[in-house]
Amino acid sequence: MRERLGPAALASRLPTGDRAALGQAITLVESRRPDHRRQAQELLELLPVNPDGVRVGISGPPGVGKSTFIEALGMRLVEDGSRVAVLAVDPSSERTGGSILADKTRMQRLSRHSGAFIRPSPSAGALGGVGRRTRETLLVCEAAGYDVVLVETVGVGQSEAAVAMMVDTFLLLMLAGAGDEIQGIKRGVLEWADILAVTKADGDNRLRAATAAGELRSALSLFTPRGSAWTPSVHTVSAREGAGIDDVWRDVLEHRSTGTASGVLAQRRKEQLGYWLRSAVEDGLKTAFEDHSEVKKRRRQVETRVIAGEITPTHGALELLRAFGIDSAD
Amino acid sequence: MRERLGPAALASRLPTGDRAALGQAITLVESRRPDHRRQAQELLELLPVNPDGVRVGISGPPGVGKSTFIEALGMRLVEDGSRVAVLAVDPSSERTGGSILADKTRMQRLSRHSGAFIRPSPSAGALGGVGRRTRETLLVCEAAGYDVVLVETVGVGQSEAAVAMMVDTFLLLMLAGAGDEIQGIKRGVLEWADILAVTKADGDNRLRAATAAGELRSALSLFTPRGSAWTPSVHTVSAREGAGIDDVWRDVLEHRSTGTASGVLAQRRKEQLGYWLRSAVEDGLKTAFEDHSEVKKRRRQVETRVIAGEITPTHGALELLRAFGIDSAD
Repeated sequence: MRERLGPAALASRLPTGDRAALGQAITLVESRRPDHRRQAQELLELLPVNPDGVRVGISGPPGVGKSTFIEALGMRLVEDGSRVAVLAVDPSSERTGGSILADKTRMQRLSRHSGAFIRPSPSAGALGGVGRRTRETLLVCEAAGYDVVLVETVGVGQSEAAVAMMVDTFLLLMLAGAGDEIQGIKRGVLEWADILAVTKADGDNRLRAATAAGELRSALSLFTPRGSAWTPSVHTVSAREGAGIDDVWRDVLEHRSTGTASGVLAQRRKEQLGYWLRSAVEDGLKTAFEDHSEVKKRRRQVETRVIAGEITPTHGALELLRAFGIDSAD
Repeated sequence: MRERLGPAALASRLPTGDRAALGQAITLVESRRPDHRRQAQELLELLPVNPDGVRVGISGPPGVGKSTFIEALGMRLVEDGSRVAVLAVDPSSERTGGSILADKTRMQRLSRHSGAFIRPSPSAGALGGVGRRTRETLLVCEAAGYDVVLVETVGVGQSEAAVAMMVDTFLLLMLAGAGDEIQGIKRGVLEWADILAVTKADGDNRLRAATAAGELRSALSLFTPRGSAWTPSVHTVSAREGAGIDDVWRDVLEHRSTGTASGVLAQRRKEQLGYWLRSAVEDGLKTAFEDHSEVKKRRRQVETRVIAGEITPTHGALELLRAFGIDSAD
């Protein structure tokens, strides 16, 4: 397919499993050209929504074995007949142009399977923009018949919030340390976790992982308000031995069906739409501000003076807002 | 003092302990009138900074006994010769006009002491605005000779982040449950805690509180990256019996001196200035956007259509941004 399809044609071809249409649709969604953006939104509004699509976020610190886990889980699912898409939100890609998923060799078996589709993180743009494009790619993948979408992110920074806002279930991978402790997870990330798994529970590390999981379980019970509809579960997994992967997946489906029954899932998806609307407005305002020539001229100097304590942050902000054409009141 | 003093006169009278000047300065800082705001910034830029001022944030769920704790701690400090100001960031005050500190009767003894100053949360305005005005009031209090400023907030929502961004040390109060568990704390709030204390550790509840503190201690050790300069400590306190308060305060000073020695505190204060600059810019943009007549006209309808799935969040945002006069690219 060499021709460039319009939104309507793409929308009708996507559900047929046409890979070229999928590639074109994602290119459209990731593009920053204004005419492409309009077409992308038109396309998204034409797409059928699959109410049974399962959206799972997966995070964890570097070295936890995310791609090994995702490959093991993904292979299990495609061999069971599911179609699986793997996407990524990587805030570092805005700086380096690289991506945690750029190298498909990290998931060689899965990337070669006809039931799987792996897409690296869109690079460039603010985190909000990267998150938004990944979310839209997720919708395109669902419309293209991928009934499971796994969204990977690194366990640092704010990308967890963006991922949590596009998935039904958030899975946090953790690592037992050299002692029994868990390492390298920011306390704030815990907020997003629906399910946790301690990885590399094999060989010498098996006991250590089990101990860490037990500690994690009692730690989490401290912070789950009584009466919560869902208490995060903690698993141990070994991607190498294939152990525990099925249990994690059973739990993902359990979390999903509990949420469907209670109405929490429908509510969560509505709140997510509100979040993305607000986030896109904020990004648009921020971009317009940062690209404004007068703001550009003065910004560095204002920042320096604020950090040095010469002027107050409020004073600095008022000056920059005035340069942008806003006389701010609050 | 009936006369209205200008910024320069206020700045020179504040350090003399002139209560009327303090009241006027805070009124100025809290005012939303543009001329007041300019004068307030002028005043703040004239104020001396007390490098030894201790800024402590205090949070915890409703019912944890925050005011009882603050009164007990505050009394201890003023009796030792410190001058103590108590401020509040209360996001609910923007809705109700009320405040967690509106009722000074909650801290009767402290509020009558000449070494103490208690100020309720400024009401009205977005959380960013409430936070900003509280932070500026904190600076006024420090210039007025209050060497300890305690900033209270409720343990829900996003006010913790605003408070964490204006203090040196963040103290989280928690409650042992009917069993041994800790209750009512959102997991995300943990991110901000430098020191934790389980309250009401007296009478029948003593053992329960000690058990909860022990569990909390091992839970936190799981989430403190190896090599961190500071590992959060966990205390039990009884405001009724006066037990544990001194230990908590010793720890606050220890956290502060560790941070001073390592340079972490100076770095934290610089980052805080950057945060307040960004936050004031974002609030200014948001306010201008929300007050824009064309945006006001269309907003409700766009939100409804997005939530209903008729248009995408990105499409909705583009429409609203266009109404505001921005043709957004990203």
